[in-house]
Amino acid sequence: MTEFNLPSVWIQELTWQEVDSYLQREDRIVIVPVGSTEQHGPAGPCGLDAYVAIALAEDVARRKGVLCTPPLWFGDSPHHTAFPGTLSLRTETLMLVIRDIARNLARHRFNRIVLINGHKGSNLPALTTAVRNLHEEELPGVLFAVADPLHLARSAAGRIKERPEHHAGELEISQMLYKYPELIRKDRLTEEWVDFENVFGGFVGGDLFGPAPEGVDIIWSSREQRTFTPSGSFSPSARMSAEKGKAYHEHMVERLSEFIDWLRGYKGPIGGAA
Amino acid sequence: MTEFNLPSVWIQELTWQEVDSYLQREDRIVIVPVGSTEQHGPAGPCGLDAYVAIALAEDVARRKGVLCTPPLWFGDSPHHTAFPGTLSLRTETLMLVIRDIARNLARHRFNRIVLINGHKGSNLPALTTAVRNLHEEELPGVLFAVADPLHLARSAAGRIKERPEHHAGELEISQMLYKYPELIRKDRLTEEWVDFENVFGGFVGGDLFGPAPEGVDIIWSSREQRTFTPSGSFSPSARMSAEKGKAYHEHMVERLSEFIDWLRGYKGPIGGAA
Amino acid sequence: MTEFNLPSVWIQELTWQEVDSYLQREDRIVIVPVGSTEQHGPAGPCGLDAYVAIALAEDVARRKGVLCTPPLWFGDSPHHTAFPGTLSLRTETLMLVIRDIARNLARHRFNRIVLINGHKGSNLPALTTAVRNLHEEELPGVLFAVADPLHLARSAAGRIKERPEHHAGELEISQMLYKYPELIRKDRLTEEWVDFENVFGGFVGGDLFGPAPEGVDIIWSSREQRTFTPSGSFSPSARMSAEKGKAYHEHMVERLSEFIDWLRGYKGPIGGAA
Amino acid sequence: MTEFNLPSVWIQELTWQEVDSYLQREDRIVIVPVGSTEQHGPAGPCGLDAYVAIALAEDVARRKGVLCTPPLWFGDSPHHTAFPGTLSLRTETLMLVIRDIARNLARHRFNRIVLINGHKGSNLPALTTAVRNLHEEELPGVLFAVADPLHLARSAAGRIKERPEHHAGELEISQMLYKYPELIRKDRLTEEWVDFENVFGGFVGGDLFGPAPEGVDIIWSSREQRTFTPSGSFSPSARMSAEKGKAYHEHMVERLSEFIDWLRGYKGPIGGAA
Amino acid sequence: MTEFNLPSVWIQELTWQEVDSYLQREDRIVIVPVGSTEQHGPAGPCGLDAYVAIALAEDVARRKGVLCTPPLWFGDSPHHTAFPGTLSLRTETLMLVIRDIARNLARHRFNRIVLINGHKGSNLPALTTAVRNLHEEELPGVLFAVADPLHLARSAAGRIKERPEHHAGELEISQMLYKYPELIRKDRLTEEWVDFENVFGGFVGGDLFGPAPEGVDIIWSSREQRTFTPSGSFSPSARMSAEKGKAYHEHMVERLSEFIDWLRGYKGPIGGAA
Amino acid sequence: MTEFNLPSVWIQELTWQEVDSYLQREDRIVIVPVGSTEQHGPAGPCGLDAYVAIALAEDVARRKGVLCTPPLWFGDSPHHTAFPGTLSLRTETLMLVIRDIARNLARHRFNRIVLINGHKGSNLPALTTAVRNLHEEELPGVLFAVADPLHLARSAAGRIKERPEHHAGELEISQMLYKYPELIRKDRLTEEWVDFENVFGGFVGGDLFGPAPEGVDIIWSSREQRTFTPSGSFSPSARMSAEKGKAYHEHMVERLSEFIDWLRGYKGPIGGAA
Repeated sequence: MTEFNLPSVWIQELTWQEVDSYLQREDRIVIVPVGSTEQHGPAGPCGLDAYVAIALAEDVARRKGVLCTPPLWFGDSPHHTAFPGTLSLRTETLMLVIRDIARNLARHRFNRIVLINGHKGSNLPALTTAVRNLHEEELPGVLFAVADPLHLARSAAGRIKERPEHHAGELEISQMLYKYPELIRKDRLTEEWVDFENVFGGFVGGDLFGPAPEGVDIIWSSREQRTFTPSGSFSPSARMSAEKGKAYHEHMVERLSEFIDWLRGYKGPIGGAA
Repeated sequence: MTEFNLPSVWIQELTWQEVDSYLQREDRIVIVPVGSTEQHGPAGPCGLDAYVAIALAEDVARRKGVLCTPPLWFGDSPHHTAFPGTLSLRTETLMLVIRDIARNLARHRFNRIVLINGHKGSNLPALTTAVRNLHEEELPGVLFAVADPLHLARSAAGRIKERPEHHAGELEISQMLYKYPELIRKDRLTEEWVDFENVFGGFVGGDLFGPAPEGVDIIWSSREQRTFTPSGSFSPSARMSAEKGKAYHEHMVERLSEFIDWLRGYKGPIGGAA
Repeated sequence: MTEFNLPSVWIQELTWQEVDSYLQREDRIVIVPVGSTEQHGPAGPCGLDAYVAIALAEDVARRKGVLCTPPLWFGDSPHHTAFPGTLSLRTETLMLVIRDIARNLARHRFNRIVLINGHKGSNLPALTTAVRNLHEEELPGVLFAVADPLHLARSAAGRIKERPEHHAGELEISQMLYKYPELIRKDRLTEEWVDFENVFGGFVGGDLFGPAPEGVDIIWSSREQRTFTPSGSFSPSARMSAEKGKAYHEHMVERLSEFIDWLRGYKGPIGGAA
Repeated sequence: MTEFNLPSVWIQELTWQEVDSYLQREDRIVIVPVGSTEQHGPAGPCGLDAYVAIALAEDVARRKGVLCTPPLWFGDSPHHTAFPGTLSLRTETLMLVIRDIARNLARHRFNRIVLINGHKGSNLPALTTAVRNLHEEELPGVLFAVADPLHLARSAAGRIKERPEHHAGELEISQMLYKYPELIRKDRLTEEWVDFENVFGGFVGGDLFGPAPEGVDIIWSSREQRTFTPSGSFSPSARMSAEKGKAYHEHMVERLSEFIDWLRGYKGPIGGAA
Repeated sequence: MTEFNLPSVWIQELTWQEVDSYLQREDRIVIVPVGSTEQHGPAGPCGLDAYVAIALAEDVARRKGVLCTPPLWFGDSPHHTAFPGTLSLRTETLMLVIRDIARNLARHRFNRIVLINGHKGSNLPALTTAVRNLHEEELPGVLFAVADPLHLARSAAGRIKERPEHHAGELEISQMLYKYPELIRKDRLTEEWVDFENVFGGFVGGDLFGPAPEGVDIIWSSREQRTFTPSGSFSPSARMSAEKGKAYHEHMVERLSEFIDWLRGYKGPIGGAA
Repeated sequence: MTEFNLPSVWIQELTWQEVDSYLQREDRIVIVPVGSTEQHGPAGPCGLDAYVAIALAEDVARRKGVLCTPPLWFGDSPHHTAFPGTLSLRTETLMLVIRDIARNLARHRFNRIVLINGHKGSNLPALTTAVRNLHEEELPGVLFAVADPLHLARSAAGRIKERPEHHAGELEISQMLYKYPELIRKDRLTEEWVDFENVFGGFVGGDLFGPAPEGVDIIWSSREQRTFTPSGSFSPSARMSAEKGKAYHEHMVERLSEFIDWLRGYKGPIGGAA
């Protein structure tokens, strides 16, 4: 592995010449953390998803010696916008932001761009289509990847958590507690959850890491959300713990590290255009 | 159930006054079939995904007495565009098409709009974000749903198929054979498949209905696709049969019918705005 | 003439390898049928314009051995959107759809793209500007053409019809009767028409195939349309007949066939860029 | 008729309070002249189409006492852009410009907006779709009309001119000579013309005011145009005369004046929304 | 200096071959005058800013022998749109118009494009970002410059005027009086002005050419503007004079002429890409 | 003054209910820090402009008890994109991001939105036009303001610095040293500067806080920038000091605090719509 001896993994903390020195290596990997600012129930901070992306990005970057761009604090969360503090980009705006950032990175010769999404699922349509189209049309020589807790912890989550996890639940609250304990309001933890069976008739699953029904995706708005979960809690957070947070977080950092290793050795067809 | 006595379930075959008569009922459901025109390996027709959407839409519409719009033959398939016959809309274009159609339907007082996507997965970012944003910003009084074989047959698929199913595989080829047998080139069935482990290092699953790895989404282009599957076959199609096709198709029609029934009785908060 | 021995003229019914085999010839012509889903008075189906495009495309394609893309069922019809069943794309959306499809076709090396518009006139602004700009800016090596009943039957129409023809009139209803007789409600034929002189003061002509006034184009909305033609009939349909439909349709197929022949032999400057 | 006693018909020459005083009347008509800056052969100025729009607008406005906006000098002319001096807006840009101007006019309570297009035909897709969509979606209370020499002089043109007229021909050169004689280079008049039969095989007519073929629209680019008419002359201009120009121009002013009169008395459904 | 012997400096008054002859020189400079149509108080015409741009462009072009495009009469003035006669383009529309015109000019090999903005300040965001992005992304071989009275007369203005100048004030009214005396309503001159201290608390300066406060930009709408200046006058115009107008105008023409001279001799890095 | 007793001024660190409690007051002020990620010469970090915005926002927010949104790390910097580490949004993208965030804030009833721009000048076109259009068209009840060091320190800067300040100069490097000393590479401070007179002929000023020439704005690209300042330093940074940084920073915090005070007491017409 190429040695990494810059004073920070964050581009915003480096001079351009330091970034330039990193680009002399062959494996020019960069991580882009993408978050969201949105309600996370009575106990979680509005920036939770961004903190998830930042923490994952920073920990894997330090462990593997790769650079990160500054985080994007804003994601695609229209269904939360009836709750104050939610600041959502429109899907098209988010696509443009990702495209602009990726074009700059590619111009500087980064050739492996890994988006880390902290906003489980909901940012993925914008992120994956933005980079898919860019890779097809403009940047064949860049390998793009999109990482998300939903996939990184697909099976591990079930071993760690006790309750269904959808939004503002046990796992992500625990992860915050582990990494940023001052951001959790421990006196506001809750057993409140959304009865998906009742609201969505068994067609939409209430545990993003659990077995899903043979379903149909039913779209809800933020106003409707306030009627079926006035507190914004979709999943019980009361059983959170720093230990669970650590297990969940470190599992993902480990899996991401394996991915970075694979990227470094990868010689296949993806992203290999001249 | 309200009686349905129009000469067709397809709006394109009805006069506007016939459509208007349907809108006198309380449950003003409409189905929008969305397909794709893209390569489906040596044995499958380019329009396969659209035929899937059309067949599902028509069968459930006839069974439950609801209307369908004409199909959209074009979807979001940039990763197949290096294969002749693939006609892909850009993600943003598809979003606009869905939005325009939905706005017209809502203006005519349809209040439950069910998109049926025949293009497993790949159209979903455009479809779900288009209707999610529309529901949030403009059409709170419409309930939107998006149905997709990936979810409708989530567990059933595993009981029916023998091999991994990604694209142009046993299940969708069987479904075609069952519904449109003349569209399958039986002499071109194949055992060819993509070795996902080899190409994507175990981070991307090769069976959309099977257990998925703890993964990272790796983006590939159509040019790259032609290098790792020159025939366009991702999954073996040789073991297809009309019986499998029937089991797969009828399972989904049944599940969609249950959904229509649920929609008819639904009194919850979604889509209930004045 | 190059022999055509594929099982269908429709790309959606062919495998990509069959489409590829067609592209080995020198004259790589493709037809794109563009319709509309909109009210066509008490007797005509909402999909009439799309059926016109499909029937013209299929008949000329079979006669001359060229390929067709799947049809676009949706066109640019804002002035009909107050009538249920009308599903109109915004002008900009239609331009984008045409552009996306044309770019894909050009990428696959089709070099003569013929749009057949079934929606007399109203789609033309979007269609002609979309391909004009594409040809100027991106695809100089493709010859684009746009065919429309208004021009194909410019003089013949007058010999066939007895009454003024604007929308939902004798000619297009006859054409449906000839090609898709089950789609016409014969008990709903009508003598109703719009008195253009009265509504538009002699500045807008009421017969699209007749002599036009020295005029000014006056724009009307769908709501206004419902006031001046509550049934949606602009032109009398009562004198329709399958014979008139045959004469009208076959005239256009013949003229389109002459055009395909001319295209095959064409060696001039248009679309000849390297 | 309401008296008009402002010092100019041009909004750009009036104070806002003068414009405001005009808006106290019931018939709040405004004319928007839309031109083009593009090659007009060896004898005609690049601004010819804009001068046509300006002259028509000013003469009818003075005769009937209505206001005009400043002219738009730029139109939609991609097919001329290989000739220096051509300054073409993209179709979408022109649509946005028209929309912005119309929205401002409507906000100020103008309720009849007449676009006068000097660029025969080629601007019409952008102009008519822009105002059609605006009238349908946002401004039901405004009557929009689009006037164009092609329609205003549809039959009169044939009585005045001796030769086919397509672009830079006898009629529009004569009109310039009549209104702006210093803009015509009399020593560069030409008999050059484009042999449409030869270039377009009889599917595209070479006389915009003459009988048209049963045709198909064939799209050409500006580069191709330079090959089939290196001088930019589509139609012979040598027989131009100020008398022909006067007859042509005054005929159109007269027809436009009749239209303004009709607008003033109009009580029908168009543009009558509250 | 290359000799200039064309009959006009305005492209709209020249044939394309005359424009072409100009392009044979090495310094292919072109001026684009950009104005605005907006209220200018009780004494000034709505087109004032466009007349400023036209007069500056024409005078410098004649003096230095360079070409001008036709003027754009419309600018970015949302904050004036509550006053009749204001016709504002949206910022994005103006950016597109500038981009389209610049692309055409560059295609014709103009290599120095000077925008002259008559609308002090308010058009600058659209103009500068449009050409900055174009120069960065598409047209590295063109040198773009943007001239504005605010900068051209930065220090001279203070020597000429007696009163604060913001909008519709002494300087621009004087300039009109000097160049287009018939456009000023001398009986409507006014001492009215906006008390910026009172409205904006000392954070926004009321003299665009005077010392500015340590400030914060406070955004106001056109409706708000009508409350704090019902007449539209921001600055006193009563002390205007043709002499002041001449001093102000000729100072700017002189400075622009120096700039053209510098451009002609310039050999530096800007706009020098192959 | 209303008491502020939330645990943080940053929305990302608060729960939605804490944000909601803040919105019970009458003066619902929020600060949006907007930065940039771009080269800042050999001694400054790429994120310098974002750190400026963050530090100003946080310090004034804490002093006056108002909330801040998370920062936007990306700005409009095309002219720096040839230097690695620069991550620039396109102007239109930045406008959309600001618009989306502002719409969310307004929906939550924030009624005074103060953008603090750390990227001196270059972000302003996007920021001011975005909020100006939003205030005019959609959000008349919100008062928008845009603060920028260029204006906040307009005269004070001259008293503090010794050398011309354009980009990466003495003042902003000093400000970093004062607030984030670890981000400055003290061994890379430089006396390098851009000779504006030589590059831009005296038409563009090299000191953003100094007297400006009677000028013309000349646009340069990032590639050109690398030729005239290979290190990216526009202004000497060698004389920086924490004392200068403190004086500069605290002056701006003080001025912003005065602005917040004024906003709280403001009863004028701006942002007062129902």
